[in-house]
Order: sequence, then structure tokens, then C-alpha cells
Amino acid sequence: MEFNLSAYLKEQKARVDEALERFLPQTSGLEARVVEAARYSLFAGGKRIRPILCIAAHDALKGNSPALYPVACALEMIHTYSLIHDDLPAMDNDDFRRGKPTNHKVFGEGVAILAGDLLLTYAFELIAGAATNGADASLLLEVIGLIAQAAGFRGMIGGQVIDLECENRSDVDLATIEYMHTKKTGALLTASVVSGALLGGAGDKDLERFRRYGHHFGLAFQITDDLLDLIGNFDQMGKSPGSDLQKNKKTYPALMGIEESRRAAEEHVNRAVEAIEVFGADAEPLRAIALYLLERRG
Amino acid sequence: MEFNLSAYLKEQKARVDEALERFLPQTSGLEARVVEAARYSLFAGGKRIRPILCIAAHDALKGNSPALYPVACALEMIHTYSLIHDDLPAMDNDDFRRGKPTNHKVFGEGVAILAGDLLLTYAFELIAGAATNGADASLLLEVIGLIAQAAGFRGMIGGQVIDLECENRSDVDLATIEYMHTKKTGALLTASVVSGALLGGAGDKDLERFRRYGHHFGLAFQITDDLLDLIGNFDQMGKSPGSDLQKNKKTYPALMGIEESRRAAEEHVNRAVEAIEVFGADAEPLRAIALYLLERRG
Repeated sequence: MEFNLSAYLKEQKARVDEALERFLPQTSGLEARVVEAARYSLFAGGKRIRPILCIAAHDALKGNSPALYPVACALEMIHTYSLIHDDLPAMDNDDFRRGKPTNHKVFGEGVAILAGDLLLTYAFELIAGAATNGADASLLLEVIGLIAQAAGFRGMIGGQVIDLECENRSDVDLATIEYMHTKKTGALLTASVVSGALLGGAGDKDLERFRRYGHHFGLAFQITDDLLDLIGNFDQMGKSPGSDLQKNKKTYPALMGIEESRRAAEEHVNRAVEAIEVFGADAEPLRAIALYLLERRG
Repeated sequence: MEFNLSAYLKEQKARVDEALERFLPQTSGLEARVVEAARYSLFAGGKRIRPILCIAAHDALKGNSPALYPVACALEMIHTYSLIHDDLPAMDNDDFRRGKPTNHKVFGEGVAILAGDLLLTYAFELIAGAATNGADASLLLEVIGLIAQAAGFRGMIGGQVIDLECENRSDVDLATIEYMHTKKTGALLTASVVSGALLGGAGDKDLERFRRYGHHFGLAFQITDDLLDLIGNFDQMGKSPGSDLQKNKKTYPALMGIEESRRAAEEHVNRAVEAIEVFGADAEPLRAIALYLLERRG
């Protein structure tokens, strides 16, 4: 029977959404506004790629960790916080995200900054709390260290500051762009796969396989994202096509052309798929998700 | 021999500064700018109250935890991140902090937001990493959970959003102010004491004593801070006196008068000191730090 990716993604997304709702329900105290703001962005239609990568890697190893959903949801919270902060006027200054007004447009800049802070902080509380469900404490610390490093200045935050500094400069080369993306989007995507593998019980050799998958997946993801921005439309993207170009963002198509970008995306997808070949049918979701990048429409 | 608080604070601050320098040295990569910004605020003359409370509680129990300095420094990083974000134009809009231009005045708003994010993220990486020094993994997870909760929407972030919402409203009563401060500054101060006690090996009964100390210390700290703002001067505070009043901040002296505020501060200090009486001479630093609040000049 052929693997039905669309049904798989739908089912996993529903499970992640249900867990997110359970982990971060609306509160009623005086601080309700910042929880409302965090939930606004958390439930604004994200595809839950990072949690699903985490779950798929865990399942590829036939794992059974009680910390799986806390960690998967923490990854989505960290991703969401980064979107809220990146959209701020002082950063990318975006008014729309996934077709909806960005957080600061709805709640104001002050609350939007705090909503991002909330999600980042709560992500670590959530993972630490998984110890009470009987998850292995040393493994949880390893996962916290891995995710914090990927989200921190050697990862996502480092990538974002490089992105900020590259804007309005004309001397940015492909190596710098690739370095920036490896950090800005690649690090957390890789950490999603690797943390799932860790929870699934992976040893060093397998961890390296999932790390390689994550690395190539991240680059293919970014290249196809750039292509979508260039040739997609508002319905598919929830933002205006060509908005990267308008903001003088350095993209793959701008630097190496559309055809060469497509070839590069295909190459990275192939290498991602190769990296996890050894897991056979158990890794079918990871394989299908990577191949799907080449047909993305949103 | 009488306890020399000034010498104690000086020595502990030097140790914390040395550890912070070791944990977060300047880097040289493309992301160097955000590390520079984080270090600018981290080394802008903080008194290291939170790390010192953590160390003093740990030492009161004759603890010997290899995680003490990572946790103490993580507390200072979280405190510093909160100052950077609170000073932003969208929040308190402060140009000076401890007599120096605030982070966003030097590095711009975008980098300042990211520098705060960096410190928050790195704090958790630092604690998780202490496992490699042989610290107990379950205890570290408990500390991460405790600190994340104190820094999160039920603590510091919740307090800050309540503060934001109370500005320019005239119907704010003393109970709301106290609730706000318990969260905004009290939660992390209490978590500093309690995490030190946890690392020092405290059982439930002792933890409750340190929690009570932290609670009353936090309130006394806030009241004396409000009094200083009202009657201090720029040299002592590093900011203009009366700036809370100008921003229509609700303070203790504004709500209950200067004399009544002084009495309330004294009462909270006494209760903090009482809470840790059982630890005798080993808790002398904690006792002296609390009593010192009543003579604060900065």
C-alpha cells in the first residue's frame, strides 16, 4: 500500500494541535492578554513541520517516549516565538503572516515581544516538566541543551542577526547566504529531527544520519521557500509574492537563478533521503516529507 | 567577628563576573554583533543580586553543587534579558540604565530584541550543560522548571504585561500593584533563592523557608526600589529620580505614602529574616542582604 502523506500530515497536525491546546490553554488572570497573544500566533495556521519531523524521527526508531509531545510542542513554540519577533517593525516589519495580521498588528509591539518571550520560556518549562511523566532525566537535559543551542546565538538567533546585517548590503555571496540559512532555519529543523531521534533511543551513528537528513532538509526547505516567494501567489503564501525581493533580501534564486535553485533543492532532497535509507519503511514519513518539498505550493 | 556584608558582596560579585565572562565570551563569527550586544548589558554594572541570593542559599545549607555557578549565571542572564526588553520603546522606553545608554540606544532595536532572546535561550543551555559536570539530572530539570515558571507568564512576563496594561489607568489599587510586583520582580528573586536551596540539597520543609524569605525579600526590594526612585538621585540610580512618577507608574509611595512604605519594607525584611532563622550563622549573608535593603542607596 502506498504511503498517504497528506493523510499522515493531517493526522499528525491534529495531534500536535490538540497537545498544544492542552499544554497552553487560555488563562483568566490579569496576565490573560499575553497568553491570548501567544495563542493567536500559535494557532494561526502553522503546518507543524518541526513537531512532525520530531515525531517522524522518533517513530522511525519505533520509540515510545513520554516526552515526545512536550518536546514536539516546545519546538513549535520556539518556531512561533521566532516568527513573532522576526515580524516586528525593528526586524522584518511584516504586517501579514499566513494571511493574518501579524502579532504586533493585533496586540501592539509591547505585548507581541512579551508573547514571543512567553513561548520561548514556556518551551523549556514544558520539556523540563516531562520528567514527571517518567521520561529519562539525562535525555531530557540533552534535548534541552540541543534545542537551546539550535535556537541560540550559534543557531537561529545568530542567523537572524546575520540576516539583519546583510539587508541593504550588495556584497553578500552565496556562501554567506548558505551559512545564514543553515543557522536561521536549518538549525531548528535539524534539532527537531535529532531531538526526536534522541527520544526514540538513537545511538551516535543513527543520530548522525538524522543530523544529515536535517541539514539537507533545511537547505532544501529554504531554497523552495525562496522559490515560492518569487513565483507563488498570496493565496498560497499568505503574504505578497516577491516580498523578499522588495525588501532586498538575498535569496537563492536571486543569486543563482531559478533553474539552478531547483536543481540545488533536488540535490539536497536526494541527500536527505539517502541519509535515512537504512531505516527502510519505518522512515517512510521522513522520506515523503522531504520529497514533498519539491512540489510545495505553500 | 562581625559579618562584613560589603566584603562578601564584593567577593561574590567578582566570582559571578568571572563565571559570566567564562560562560559567554565574545565570539568572532558573523553573529558577533548580537553576542557583543548581550555582553554590553550583561556587564553594564549589575549588582548580581540574583546570583548572590542563589549562592547564599546554597551555602546556607553547606551545599557543594557543580551546577551552582551555571545556575547563578543563568539567573543573571534572565534578569538582564528582561531589562533589555523592558527598556525597549514599545515597553518602558528608557534611554538610560545604570547610567549607561540602554541596549537599543547603542545597538538598535532589532539587535537589542535578539540580544535579549539570546540571553534567555542561553540561560537554559547553560543549566542543561551542567549535567556534564556531574550535577544530578533530575535536580537540574527541577531547577529549569522552577526558573522557567518564575520567568514565564505566571511570573515575570505576566507581571510585565500587567504593568504595561496598568499604565495610564487610574483605578489600580494596592492589591493589584502587589500582585504585579510579586510576579514582575518577586518571582525571579524567589526562584533565585529556591534554586540555590535546591542545589544545596534542601528538603520540602527548608524549601518552604527559603520560598518565604524570597517572597518577603522581593516585596521589600520593590518597595525600597520605589522609594529610591522617588527620593534618590541620578548618581545613585543611574536614572533620573521621579521617572516612575513621570511615566505614571503606580508605586508604593504613590499609593500609601513614604512613611507607610518604609514601615511596610521593614515589616517584609523582618519576616524574610525570621523565615531563615533556623539556619543560624550559615544564613548570615542572606540575613545581612535583607537588612541592607532598608539602607539601600542604589
